[in-house]
Amino acid sequence: MPLRMLTAGESHGRGLVATVEGLPAGLTVDVDYLDRHLSRRQAGYGRGGRMQIERDRAEILSGLMGGTTIAAPVSVLVWNRDWRLEEPPLTRPRPGHADLVGAQKYRFDDVRRPLERASARETAARVAGGSLARRLLEDFGIRIFSHVVQLGGVDATMFPDSFEALESAAEASDLRCADVDAAARMKREIDAAKTRGDTLGGVVEVIAIGVPPGLGTYVHWDRRLDGRLAQALMSVHAIKGVAVGDAFRIAATPGSAAHDEILYDDQRTFHRETNRAGGLEAGITNGMPLVMRAAMKPISTLRNPLRSVDIRTKEDSPGAIVRSDVTAVPAAGVVCEAMASLVLADTFLEKFGADVMADIHESYERYMTRLRG
Amino acid sequence: MPLRMLTAGESHGRGLVATVEGLPAGLTVDVDYLDRHLSRRQAGYGRGGRMQIERDRAEILSGLMGGTTIAAPVSVLVWNRDWRLEEPPLTRPRPGHADLVGAQKYRFDDVRRPLERASARETAARVAGGSLARRLLEDFGIRIFSHVVQLGGVDATMFPDSFEALESAAEASDLRCADVDAAARMKREIDAAKTRGDTLGGVVEVIAIGVPPGLGTYVHWDRRLDGRLAQALMSVHAIKGVAVGDAFRIAATPGSAAHDEILYDDQRTFHRETNRAGGLEAGITNGMPLVMRAAMKPISTLRNPLRSVDIRTKEDSPGAIVRSDVTAVPAAGVVCEAMASLVLADTFLEKFGADVMADIHESYERYMTRLRG
Amino acid sequence: MPLRMLTAGESHGRGLVATVEGLPAGLTVDVDYLDRHLSRRQAGYGRGGRMQIERDRAEILSGLMGGTTIAAPVSVLVWNRDWRLEEPPLTRPRPGHADLVGAQKYRFDDVRRPLERASARETAARVAGGSLARRLLEDFGIRIFSHVVQLGGVDATMFPDSFEALESAAEASDLRCADVDAAARMKREIDAAKTRGDTLGGVVEVIAIGVPPGLGTYVHWDRRLDGRLAQALMSVHAIKGVAVGDAFRIAATPGSAAHDEILYDDQRTFHRETNRAGGLEAGITNGMPLVMRAAMKPISTLRNPLRSVDIRTKEDSPGAIVRSDVTAVPAAGVVCEAMASLVLADTFLEKFGADVMADIHESYERYMTRLRG
Amino acid sequence: MPLRMLTAGESHGRGLVATVEGLPAGLTVDVDYLDRHLSRRQAGYGRGGRMQIERDRAEILSGLMGGTTIAAPVSVLVWNRDWRLEEPPLTRPRPGHADLVGAQKYRFDDVRRPLERASARETAARVAGGSLARRLLEDFGIRIFSHVVQLGGVDATMFPDSFEALESAAEASDLRCADVDAAARMKREIDAAKTRGDTLGGVVEVIAIGVPPGLGTYVHWDRRLDGRLAQALMSVHAIKGVAVGDAFRIAATPGSAAHDEILYDDQRTFHRETNRAGGLEAGITNGMPLVMRAAMKPISTLRNPLRSVDIRTKEDSPGAIVRSDVTAVPAAGVVCEAMASLVLADTFLEKFGADVMADIHESYERYMTRLRG
Repeated sequence: MPLRMLTAGESHGRGLVATVEGLPAGLTVDVDYLDRHLSRRQAGYGRGGRMQIERDRAEILSGLMGGTTIAAPVSVLVWNRDWRLEEPPLTRPRPGHADLVGAQKYRFDDVRRPLERASARETAARVAGGSLARRLLEDFGIRIFSHVVQLGGVDATMFPDSFEALESAAEASDLRCADVDAAARMKREIDAAKTRGDTLGGVVEVIAIGVPPGLGTYVHWDRRLDGRLAQALMSVHAIKGVAVGDAFRIAATPGSAAHDEILYDDQRTFHRETNRAGGLEAGITNGMPLVMRAAMKPISTLRNPLRSVDIRTKEDSPGAIVRSDVTAVPAAGVVCEAMASLVLADTFLEKFGADVMADIHESYERYMTRLRG
Repeated sequence: MPLRMLTAGESHGRGLVATVEGLPAGLTVDVDYLDRHLSRRQAGYGRGGRMQIERDRAEILSGLMGGTTIAAPVSVLVWNRDWRLEEPPLTRPRPGHADLVGAQKYRFDDVRRPLERASARETAARVAGGSLARRLLEDFGIRIFSHVVQLGGVDATMFPDSFEALESAAEASDLRCADVDAAARMKREIDAAKTRGDTLGGVVEVIAIGVPPGLGTYVHWDRRLDGRLAQALMSVHAIKGVAVGDAFRIAATPGSAAHDEILYDDQRTFHRETNRAGGLEAGITNGMPLVMRAAMKPISTLRNPLRSVDIRTKEDSPGAIVRSDVTAVPAAGVVCEAMASLVLADTFLEKFGADVMADIHESYERYMTRLRG
Repeated sequence: MPLRMLTAGESHGRGLVATVEGLPAGLTVDVDYLDRHLSRRQAGYGRGGRMQIERDRAEILSGLMGGTTIAAPVSVLVWNRDWRLEEPPLTRPRPGHADLVGAQKYRFDDVRRPLERASARETAARVAGGSLARRLLEDFGIRIFSHVVQLGGVDATMFPDSFEALESAAEASDLRCADVDAAARMKREIDAAKTRGDTLGGVVEVIAIGVPPGLGTYVHWDRRLDGRLAQALMSVHAIKGVAVGDAFRIAATPGSAAHDEILYDDQRTFHRETNRAGGLEAGITNGMPLVMRAAMKPISTLRNPLRSVDIRTKEDSPGAIVRSDVTAVPAAGVVCEAMASLVLADTFLEKFGADVMADIHESYERYMTRLRG
Repeated sequence: MPLRMLTAGESHGRGLVATVEGLPAGLTVDVDYLDRHLSRRQAGYGRGGRMQIERDRAEILSGLMGGTTIAAPVSVLVWNRDWRLEEPPLTRPRPGHADLVGAQKYRFDDVRRPLERASARETAARVAGGSLARRLLEDFGIRIFSHVVQLGGVDATMFPDSFEALESAAEASDLRCADVDAAARMKREIDAAKTRGDTLGGVVEVIAIGVPPGLGTYVHWDRRLDGRLAQALMSVHAIKGVAVGDAFRIAATPGSAAHDEILYDDQRTFHRETNRAGGLEAGITNGMPLVMRAAMKPISTLRNPLRSVDIRTKEDSPGAIVRSDVTAVPAAGVVCEAMASLVLADTFLEKFGADVMADIHESYERYMTRLRG
């Protein structure tokens, strides 16, 4: 699989770095583009103090000459402003976080060690790296966005008709929620949770439009695009569930109403009037918008902490309090976009070659022409 | 990652083969054990005719001497009885299946070509191969089973108190459903769907008990166990959604009630009284039972077919009818068990070494003793 | 990397199986083609009795319909005729073989366990699988062959002028040696070694002609084609050294005479009059013939055995005698061809796409046209 | 395979970064240790001007707390002092370098683009990253060093008796050559080559002592340690040949004198009196010193340039002159050490677990005790 990304960096270390290896030559990349997505990740009603401290900026260390990629690995640095080398040890693990399991696995007697790497601060590196993949996809008319469909138990239900309007509405909302009424109720939930020292989860939907049919494949289990996307989204901090389309609802629907009938139109193209499959059949994109949902549990760090046990003294003591947000659901959408971009770009390069943008464009155009054949 | 599995074989080819590479030496494997799980995959109310034709038997071709592994790749053959070399071409793609997208991607003008490899028949190879991983896990007291929690829109709600009873009840049910009343209603749904030429989906829950804390890790996104399990389960035919624990419900729960408080007991062990996390925190097992759910869409082949288009003539024509089942939700549970076994065994070998069972046992025992430290 | 191959099987087990995953759809494969290469592997002056027992035949289990690939994994079975389920234990490890190290690593007290999988019998599976890759390359005018350049200390020095003649001469020789005089002396060495119960090594050269420029890349260390070929050849049983071109001689040559000057000709093509680079510059093919050498140590099983120690009693006792050959250098050439084919096909599919032969042909032709631009 | 390394950075970009993912927790790492090896890479008689400009310093960005690893990715920055953002295009490719093939593959019309990433400057990142692996190995008593056995056609022939003395002599030599007389003659060759604008190649030997038996395995072709080391060494810039031990000489030796007889001693250990196998049998370490050789071609950039063709005008014009060295054979030894360290550490972690140093030490000690059993 052509594209690899390694991230490095801790929450209060000097900074983060994402290295993306496998990008073709000839892709134009502007650091402002990366900054814009880093900034989208930092927004969102319900974020705490750190978002004020960090104003993430990407620094591209390598892989570009004259503003375009040269097929070499692109590494992006994001420095931490809130950088503290040494802190007193923390011994009261927070339920739901890596604190206890990390300490057990790695023989740590200070939960700062697992905490530092397990922190969602790392997602800034994912967004930086994933934005490179997103840039590539955009060159082929693929757009990726996300919106919040549930937060604090409040469902968004009123959506604009078009994807364009949906994206605009989501971008205009400080909760990334396209349903204005629902967003207002979500904010009341956030305010209430803040008051009682609690946190909230929710569900985001990631949508990719303009995806050609034929990405991914059914020929081997680990090549299926649905599986690869599921891994990528599930790997985002606090994401515990992933669905293609509205899978858990479709599971309760009879087959006669669960699939998308196949039609053929004047433009000599197969198409569908529904998208129950969420754009994926048998692990392959079918040309319809790719729609995935990710369920996020509430943040594990509560101002009003849960019961826990000191890992040194073994005495009952509440989980540590680390500065945190009430909810990060909108931000998780942006991170999910980045991870979906990485996986999609990877399968795109598998299909159309991965050396140089001009060649890839030719392969892509020929393929699209053939499909219309 | 130490363990690799490749499967090969088509639905109506000569047979299937799974090759599992990376198993340690010294694991006792009995072919009856594989056959038992192959047979569990074939059971289930609502299966069609093919299950009567095929009585899958595993043939172990390699990797064993004297009934134990020698660290060499183990390959398992499952012959197809229903083997037909050549069939007339099929040109009416079934919505929801690989038929159309496969034909588009691979330039096929006969949807038998994608159909043959995309068929769920391939899951017999997965179960054969995954059972080797399951055997390994059992040696360390890890048990994996599944049960149906929803089918045809009917929810199972009454569960036995203990996991042992839950497993027994699921195994005793021809729907793998531990709730007898729900199972009866599910059967009525199956009968009704059969009558009207329809199909049904549902939700299975896969549970692994006896899993030690510390499998998987948060240190890099693609090493997280939740993500790897999500890929593995999502890769199963017709699975469209995956959740750790009851993730979509937890997403709507405030943080104060969404995590598992940490306690310490007389046996000098950390433990929890709840398992909202489904046994995974920060992508690592936490010692609680590992619980995952998978949502299966209804089978794409309907006796009363959906609208489609002939890929040669481009004329409207209903999707092809291929012999099929009304539902395969119970079977999907067995396949999900196999896939979860593979991933769990892989992370187990990463943690404790992968050369020889005796060494791995020593590492495991030392680790468990250290945790109780 | 698109192409994966797993092999399974032991020397005296039921048989071998190679599964090749990642082949595009639309490649015509004939089982006779595989048999021909299996047979080439079995030929060679100096082979012992087993070659008479086994007449390897490939059985294609999966991945073909109507004689062409369908993008599904192709698995090939090669049954062992000389199949013995149980044998008395062997406790005297042969120096140079896996016997002792395998027993130490895997806690075996019978060196048959490491011996069975470590045996060069496994190379039959590699040749079967690698021949699928070779077929693919041939469709693009790439031919791969090998010849023996040294055996038993005798160097071949007189080579035909053209690669075609070189290949023909090698194929015509029962030592795969194009230098008839040298071959006669090699045979005398073989006869003498046989008489004294000894074994012989040598050096083979693997040549690929018709390779386009641009396979492999310098952009990351593990993507370099020279490194990937080196791994593949070094992984062949008893191969201990690998060179691109005549690397060890070039290392002693000044730079002014060690590189291939760049010229441009009437056909609007860059070319070279020399090929000191062996067809690879900076880990990328440069359009010249790809030339690699592999040094093979003498076979480890000697009829006149070396000193060893019984692993149970710890007493001095000569290494076990297992039926074996005097030399297998010609066969190693065929195995190296198979491994080189796999790696080359893999990089070929990375560059030109991996879905379907017709698309790959179009990408390839466009690229070749562009180079002539 | 537990350990991954990605490097990024160009020759005249802002800097280089190596990210090493998969290191266990609890490894003590000192930045001076990395600097020492970076400095060893820069030394060597025959290096040109750049070595005076760059005094590489490692900056550890992540993965350490309190001077020890926390199982998180460790990223190391090495800034370029000789940093030039934009340069006039270069259109005359140097034979032997990536210039032409890179331009062809990636559609570049300026050979600075391939040159920048293909430059051996990148090896600084490999040494930085590989030194982390080396640190890990040292904790288990494994030492890795290299020495020059041939340079400019001059063979080193007089070696100290012990590995300790060999290492000391190599470290004391500004050619990393333990044979003082040979080194003097090598320098005369370097001086002569410099005078005539030429370059020189040679052969280095990399040695690892203290390696336990049982790293790597014969069970599958891509798990063999010899193959993985071959890839790693061959991937080093200008390395064109790799041998385990003195493989090309052994290939000409009869089997009776080509293997290492097995003995058993008072310390209840199997051992050998010879090391013709170079420490590897069947792709597994056998407890003897691991010895590998790498053949380096002369540097491709000649002050007295070779014939070439302008890629834009297609007119004959000599290859570009870029500041360069006469020879980099001693430096290549240090880079080969780094690459061998990476591969060895990877197999070490596969065998003994990869989570935390304390656990790995216990597994290792138990294994070594068992071997003496």
